[in-house]
Amino acid sequence: MALIVQKFGGTSVANVDRIRNVASLVKKELDAGNQTVVVLSAMSGVTNKLVSFCEEAAPLYDMREYDAVVSTGEQVTVGLLSIILQSMGVPARAWAGWQVPIRTDAAYGKARIETIDTDNLRAALAAGEVPVVAGFQGVGPEGRVTTLGRGGSDTSAVALAAALSADRCDIYTDVDGVYTTDPRIVPKARKLPRVTYEEMLEMASLGAKVLQTRSVEMAMKYRVNLQVLSSFEDIPGTLVCDEEDIVEKEIVSGIAYSRDEAKVTLQGVKDHPGIAASIFGPLADSNINVDMIVQNVSEQGRTDVTFTVPRTDLSRALKVLDCVRKEVDIRDLSHSDTVVKISVIGVGMRTHAGVAQKMFAALAERGINILVISTSEIKVSVLIEEEYTELALRALHTAYGLDAK
Amino acid sequence: MALIVQKFGGTSVANVDRIRNVASLVKKELDAGNQTVVVLSAMSGVTNKLVSFCEEAAPLYDMREYDAVVSTGEQVTVGLLSIILQSMGVPARAWAGWQVPIRTDAAYGKARIETIDTDNLRAALAAGEVPVVAGFQGVGPEGRVTTLGRGGSDTSAVALAAALSADRCDIYTDVDGVYTTDPRIVPKARKLPRVTYEEMLEMASLGAKVLQTRSVEMAMKYRVNLQVLSSFEDIPGTLVCDEEDIVEKEIVSGIAYSRDEAKVTLQGVKDHPGIAASIFGPLADSNINVDMIVQNVSEQGRTDVTFTVPRTDLSRALKVLDCVRKEVDIRDLSHSDTVVKISVIGVGMRTHAGVAQKMFAALAERGINILVISTSEIKVSVLIEEEYTELALRALHTAYGLDAK
Repeated sequence: MALIVQKFGGTSVANVDRIRNVASLVKKELDAGNQTVVVLSAMSGVTNKLVSFCEEAAPLYDMREYDAVVSTGEQVTVGLLSIILQSMGVPARAWAGWQVPIRTDAAYGKARIETIDTDNLRAALAAGEVPVVAGFQGVGPEGRVTTLGRGGSDTSAVALAAALSADRCDIYTDVDGVYTTDPRIVPKARKLPRVTYEEMLEMASLGAKVLQTRSVEMAMKYRVNLQVLSSFEDIPGTLVCDEEDIVEKEIVSGIAYSRDEAKVTLQGVKDHPGIAASIFGPLADSNINVDMIVQNVSEQGRTDVTFTVPRTDLSRALKVLDCVRKEVDIRDLSHSDTVVKISVIGVGMRTHAGVAQKMFAALAERGINILVISTSEIKVSVLIEEEYTELALRALHTAYGLDAK
Repeated sequence: MALIVQKFGGTSVANVDRIRNVASLVKKELDAGNQTVVVLSAMSGVTNKLVSFCEEAAPLYDMREYDAVVSTGEQVTVGLLSIILQSMGVPARAWAGWQVPIRTDAAYGKARIETIDTDNLRAALAAGEVPVVAGFQGVGPEGRVTTLGRGGSDTSAVALAAALSADRCDIYTDVDGVYTTDPRIVPKARKLPRVTYEEMLEMASLGAKVLQTRSVEMAMKYRVNLQVLSSFEDIPGTLVCDEEDIVEKEIVSGIAYSRDEAKVTLQGVKDHPGIAASIFGPLADSNINVDMIVQNVSEQGRTDVTFTVPRTDLSRALKVLDCVRKEVDIRDLSHSDTVVKISVIGVGMRTHAGVAQKMFAALAERGINILVISTSEIKVSVLIEEEYTELALRALHTAYGLDAK
C-alpha cells in the first residue's frame, strides 16, 4: 500500500463538475489499494479576484490582511471535494492550513513552510479517511493565516509529501506533463517521460510555468518523487526524479524561453575598480533582480555594460540608474523591453562539450543576433530580439535532435 | 468613552466601495471618542452562491464541510475593511471566529455560541486597534469551523456586545429601522423610535426580516442596547430596549405578516383521547414545525383539525399524514399554500382588552374571512387567504391608529 499526495490546480477544480472529476481520480488511487492525501488550489480565477479586491481596497495593503482574504478560495474547494467524496462513500474531511497545522514563518504573502505537524493527518489516514488539505496556506507564528506566494499549492503538496514520507507526489494540472519546449510554438515538441530535479528547476525558473520553482527545490532537497500529469486525460505524465533514475539520458532535455526580461545597456562607462558595485549596488538596494550581465572594454578607459532586469521592474531600474549617473560617468543609456531569453537545458552538458557552440551556430544560420549570453553548469541562455522567439525555438529544437519522429 | 459594537450586513459590504462607506461609519464613532468592535457579514449574494455550490456537490451534504465552505465569505469582507481602515490611518485587524475565539457547540450549520474569549479583543482595543470580526462563524469543540445559521451575524454582534459589556450594539442594514408594518405595502407605515425586546422578538419570528430571532433573544437575555439603523442614510434608527425605557407606549406597536405558512385541514377525524398525539407526534418526529392549531367538534364522535406548517415543509407533511391515515380514521384531508398569517403585536395588550376584537371587526368590515386564530400574551395572529394581504395590513394599520399623520 503506497501513500500518494495528489495535488490539483485551479483549472482542475474550476467548478463543481470538475471537482467531481477530481473525486474520481482520488477514488481510483483508493481502488488501487493506495492511501491518498489531497491538496487543492482555489477555483481558477478566484484568487485573482480576491487579489483585485485587496488592490481596490488600498494600493498599499497590509500583507497580513491580504493573506486573510486570498486564503479563502482553497477553503471552498476542499470543502466541496470532501462533500463529493462522502457522497461516493469515501470518508473525507477538509483541512485548512491552521487546522493541520502547516506552520510557516511570518513572511505574509510569500511565507515559507517551517514545520508540518502530521499527527492529525496520520490519525485521519489510519481511520481510513482522505484528508483534503487547502493548498497555498499555513499559519504563522502569531496564529494568523499566511499564504505561500502564487503557485504555492505545489509547495504545499511537496512539503506534505516530504513530511509524510509519501511514495509519490502527483501534480495534476491542465497540461499532461513537461515538454521539450512549448508545444504551442513547436508542434514537434515531445513530452519527457522523466526529467531531473535540476533540469526541472531551470525550466521552472525560466518560464515553463508547470511547477512553482520552490516546490521543485523542496522536492529535490527531500527527494520527493514528483509526477506532473493531466487531470483530464488518463495518459502517463512526466516524472521529476534523480539523475540516476533516468536511463536514457539526453544531452539537452529541453528549451525554455522567458519574455519577462528587459535589457539595459550602459555605453561608455568610465572604468575604474568598484564601478560594477556602484552600478549594481543601488539596483540591489531597490530589490531589483539583475540577471544576465556582460561587460566589454569599448575604448581606452571606458567600458560597455549590458544586463537584464525583470520587465516589470524596468521603469524602476531606469529611475535608479538616473541617480547612479550623478555619481558615475556614463556616456549613454539605452534599454529595450522587446527581448526574449532562450535557454537550452540539460544535465548532459556537464559531460558533453560543444552544446553552446551548437546553439550559436543554429541561431547564426537563421540570421538571429545574440545580444547577451550567460551559462551555468546545466544551461546556456541567450538574449535575442523577441520577434525571433518562435524561429529560434524551432531551430534549436531541431538542432538538438529533440523533434518527435 | 463608550464601547460600541457595529454590525454591517451583506448589502452594506456588497462591494469595495460600500466597504469604504462602512469604514467611514467606523471612523465616525472613533472621532466621537468611542471604541468600536466591528462585525461583518459576507458580500450580499456570496453566501447563497457558496450554499448552492454545496447543494450542487451533493444533495445530502455533511454540515461540517458546508460550514467550512460557507464561512469563507465573511473572512473576505473583514480583511478588506481592515485594509481600508489602515489606509485611513486607523489601526485595524481582521479576526476569524476561531482566532477570537468564539466557541460554539457542535451543531454545524446552526451552532449556538457557548463562550467568547474576550482577552484578544480587549488587548487589541487597549492597543488602540479596531477589531474587525467575521460574523456568522465560530469554532466548535473539535476545532472545526461552525456557522450560526442564516442571519447569524446579528447573533455574533449581540454576543460580542454582551461578552464585552458594550454600551450599544448597532445593527447597520439596508432599512433604516423597524416600522409599524411593511412600508412597501402600507405607505403610511411609521418608523418606531423604540420597540421592546418582546415585540421585536415577535416581529422577527413573524417575518419582519430586520433581525435574526436568536439575536433578539440574546439581546433580551443580556439586556444589550440594540439599535437598528441605515448604512446609507444618516438618520436615527430604532432602539430595541426594555419596556421601562419606552415613555410613550402604544397598545399595538406593529403589524407583521408571514407568507411562509401553509394550512392543512383534517375533516371528520374519528375522535378519541390521544388523537392529537397520534397526528402531531409523527410530524414532530419528522422535524416539521406545526404552528397554529385549531380543533372543533364537527358531528358526533368526529372532529375537524386545522393547523399550519412551514410552506417549504408542506409536501413532506402531506407524506407523513398519508402514513397517519393508515392508523387514524380521517374522512378528508385538504391543504392550501395560498394563505398568509397576519399578526398584531404590542406589549400594551397585556393591560388593554379588546385588541383582538378590534382586529376581527376591521377584517370583517372588509369581508375578509378568518381561517385560523391564535393568540399569545402580546400578539394576535390570524390566518387569511393570501390575496387579502395588502388590504388586511392597511385596514389594521388604520384601525389601530398607526398611520402616519
